[in-house]
Amino acid sequence: MILPDNTQRNLTMLMDFYELTMANGYLTSGIGDRIAVFDMFFRKIPENGGFCIFAGLEQLVEYLENLSFTDEDIEFLRSKNIFDESFLAYLKNFEFKCDVWAFREGTPMFPGEPIVVVRGPIAQAQLVETMILLTVNHQSLIATKANRIVRAAQGREVIEFGSRRAQSYDAAIYGARAAYIGGCSATACTILERDYGVPAVGTMAHSWVQMFDSEYEAFARYARLYPHNCTLLVDTYNSTRSGVPNAIRVFDEVLRPMGAKPRAIRIDSGDIAYVSKRARALLDEAGYGDVKIVASNSLDEYIIRDLLIQGAPVDSFGVGEKMITSKAEPVMGGVYKLVAVEGDGCYIPKIKVSETVEKITTPGFKKAYRFFNRESGKAIADYITAYDEIINPDEPVVLFDPSAVWKKQTVQGFDAVSLLEPVFVKGKRVYKPLPLADIQTYCREQVNSLWDEVKRFEHPHRYYVDLSRRLWDIKQDMLMNLEL
Amino acid sequence: MILPDNTQRNLTMLMDFYELTMANGYLTSGIGDRIAVFDMFFRKIPENGGFCIFAGLEQLVEYLENLSFTDEDIEFLRSKNIFDESFLAYLKNFEFKCDVWAFREGTPMFPGEPIVVVRGPIAQAQLVETMILLTVNHQSLIATKANRIVRAAQGREVIEFGSRRAQSYDAAIYGARAAYIGGCSATACTILERDYGVPAVGTMAHSWVQMFDSEYEAFARYARLYPHNCTLLVDTYNSTRSGVPNAIRVFDEVLRPMGAKPRAIRIDSGDIAYVSKRARALLDEAGYGDVKIVASNSLDEYIIRDLLIQGAPVDSFGVGEKMITSKAEPVMGGVYKLVAVEGDGCYIPKIKVSETVEKITTPGFKKAYRFFNRESGKAIADYITAYDEIINPDEPVVLFDPSAVWKKQTVQGFDAVSLLEPVFVKGKRVYKPLPLADIQTYCREQVNSLWDEVKRFEHPHRYYVDLSRRLWDIKQDMLMNLEL
Repeated sequence: MILPDNTQRNLTMLMDFYELTMANGYLTSGIGDRIAVFDMFFRKIPENGGFCIFAGLEQLVEYLENLSFTDEDIEFLRSKNIFDESFLAYLKNFEFKCDVWAFREGTPMFPGEPIVVVRGPIAQAQLVETMILLTVNHQSLIATKANRIVRAAQGREVIEFGSRRAQSYDAAIYGARAAYIGGCSATACTILERDYGVPAVGTMAHSWVQMFDSEYEAFARYARLYPHNCTLLVDTYNSTRSGVPNAIRVFDEVLRPMGAKPRAIRIDSGDIAYVSKRARALLDEAGYGDVKIVASNSLDEYIIRDLLIQGAPVDSFGVGEKMITSKAEPVMGGVYKLVAVEGDGCYIPKIKVSETVEKITTPGFKKAYRFFNRESGKAIADYITAYDEIINPDEPVVLFDPSAVWKKQTVQGFDAVSLLEPVFVKGKRVYKPLPLADIQTYCREQVNSLWDEVKRFEHPHRYYVDLSRRLWDIKQDMLMNLEL
Repeated sequence: MILPDNTQRNLTMLMDFYELTMANGYLTSGIGDRIAVFDMFFRKIPENGGFCIFAGLEQLVEYLENLSFTDEDIEFLRSKNIFDESFLAYLKNFEFKCDVWAFREGTPMFPGEPIVVVRGPIAQAQLVETMILLTVNHQSLIATKANRIVRAAQGREVIEFGSRRAQSYDAAIYGARAAYIGGCSATACTILERDYGVPAVGTMAHSWVQMFDSEYEAFARYARLYPHNCTLLVDTYNSTRSGVPNAIRVFDEVLRPMGAKPRAIRIDSGDIAYVSKRARALLDEAGYGDVKIVASNSLDEYIIRDLLIQGAPVDSFGVGEKMITSKAEPVMGGVYKLVAVEGDGCYIPKIKVSETVEKITTPGFKKAYRFFNRESGKAIADYITAYDEIINPDEPVVLFDPSAVWKKQTVQGFDAVSLLEPVFVKGKRVYKPLPLADIQTYCREQVNSLWDEVKRFEHPHRYYVDLSRRLWDIKQDMLMNLEL
């Protein structure tokens, strides 16, 4: 049995070809072992939201820990006739030697801060670019979207329904994993329960109802089979005129005599606000006030918010394509940039400039902190420093906006939490996997530490991500001294 | 070595849980072997385009051919305590028995027509729903988007650059495969060449340039290493003031003495129209009129079209996130619906109604044809019939719009091509895999058979997908006689 996870699949060649040409170049130029530092960071929060959720680390760790090149890989590369034999030998005996730090999964994150930092031989640090970005970009995107939707549901259950519309298999699987981190309580996809412990739920499709001579018969059969898991899909013909009345008849005539409690009805079309209210009234009249209503059909955080404002009595939301693809903005644009190179016992900061101002990087080997107010527990700001700066939370720290330096405040007496935790030390994994449910809990707690102002869907307050004075000076000096 | 394809991965549990509850229900109700027919079809073309490209069949076939349940799968299902032992035994000895028909990969397809048809025991036909949809939806989405972008490039090369922004690993791999079907000539992702023969290309990232003391030195090193594959990335500091002049110096001072021909420069930021014109002029002045210009940076069909209208001298376009996620519309909404059940030696049509009018299905076991004009070779219309209707292309056929029946035309003397080809016959694979390059060629030819009016990006002409009179009558009768 082969699990679709990164411990058993060889995805090594899922790398951009330029990583190989560069790594070959570094090694044959004699600088392959020079220690370089790369930051992964992103520039923009999808849908102009106030924050993102970091996710995907476990799959990234599985990949890095098992990174190796098979004979077939080497043979394939040799056939390209551009790689040096010494490079191919290096790959054959590949041993990962980098240090890696990363945010904990489930942590809120903001533009411009390093969320994954890789320090190691340039040839190696370069080779892992694609998989780092691909893994973290995808899961963070979906965890972020799921968290928005879950917050809109205000404590009601959100179930991930999107496999059929996901962008291929891994997107269905790891997307559902990320959605669970973001706060979903279950998924429709069976493999998630087997492999990740995410509860898989599901009852019937319209085809079940169509297969029998009548909707009543279809419901009755289902109720007899699954008396304790009886959720009936009521919209195959007409929800309020046919589906709900037939469901009530079956609750009365099949489940009640069995002593079983009906669970729910599901609505998958029509106007959810109208149909759910009408269905609620019919169920209540019939004495089924505790039968839940599950709604699905192109839901997202905006529709859910509006349904609740209109008083739709929906207990669970099944959310499909708009969550599993983050349809409204299906890309998390994380990048991986060289920020420093070791030389003469220190780190020489590196910058990328370019005509597109947003693409200018912040140079230097860094650390990242989140400051929390000791009384309220709320996050004040993130603070990015040079790697060797020390923060003393009991001394005043001046926070200033790196692109509007006159906006400043002095803070003191906060808790400073280091955001980048070690994941690999000299190539050895030190990351300990956590139960997914714990990651979900941690995510909820961390999101709760953000001010409501940052959590608005529209025009959220911009959370502060500030550079230390020293880091800011390094960047400005490099820009100032650039000769073009 | 484990390849990330569906012959070696067990993705069986990547199914919606309701498929299992239903299959268990059908079997324990004694109707599990009743023959049912399901259609996969879609309702809307992404981005309001004129057509989609069907893709993903090869991966679907690999999945269906290898569909089986391991002991771990069975054990997991048993632990849910809702499945009958007879059902678990059925899964343990699972043998696929369905007939499957599908469009050929690369075929243009339109809303409402059956693109995959599954006929077989209801329990089986139901179990494959998620994987059919997931596989075909994803690859068709990306092939469709890639085809738009390739057409915008008007014969210039389009290279798939999106792995790092794809929605996980399979999305990168199968997305690049689909992009190649849609017309891309190459990809940045190495695994595609090893496993699918799609040329993988790539040279350097900005980090290469940053690793050396000067841009000139970085370029010179690269040129010495790869004299015959020398594409230089010129925008790390400033394309026109630094990058292109340094590239020219290296062409002169390194490549010319080696007798090597420089290949290209690449621009990844700034205004592509302005920078490419300026770079072209500098290259031409220096005698490098045959050095190509590759452009990347958030390109899609609209930007490429506008760049070409403005005369940007770009030879190759590297297209990333907007293609690999189909960013503007990242979902292909294919559905899989029961359309008929066998009974008394014939097929009883089944319909799904529902309050949402677009969700009403076309009942019946069907065939699908494309009519081509014998002189021009252009596609006239698609024509959907009941499974046992015979088309005689030499007799007049009345085509009418199924939702506006007064719009009609009579055609005669056309070529009628059957669109649904057999893929499995009684569970045995009859599908023969084709070289991917042949699928790409076929796709191009088939797209060429569409009128330009259908190929416009904005407000394309709606291609005709008509029902035969008999099929239309069946649908109207069922709707008319529905009692709610």
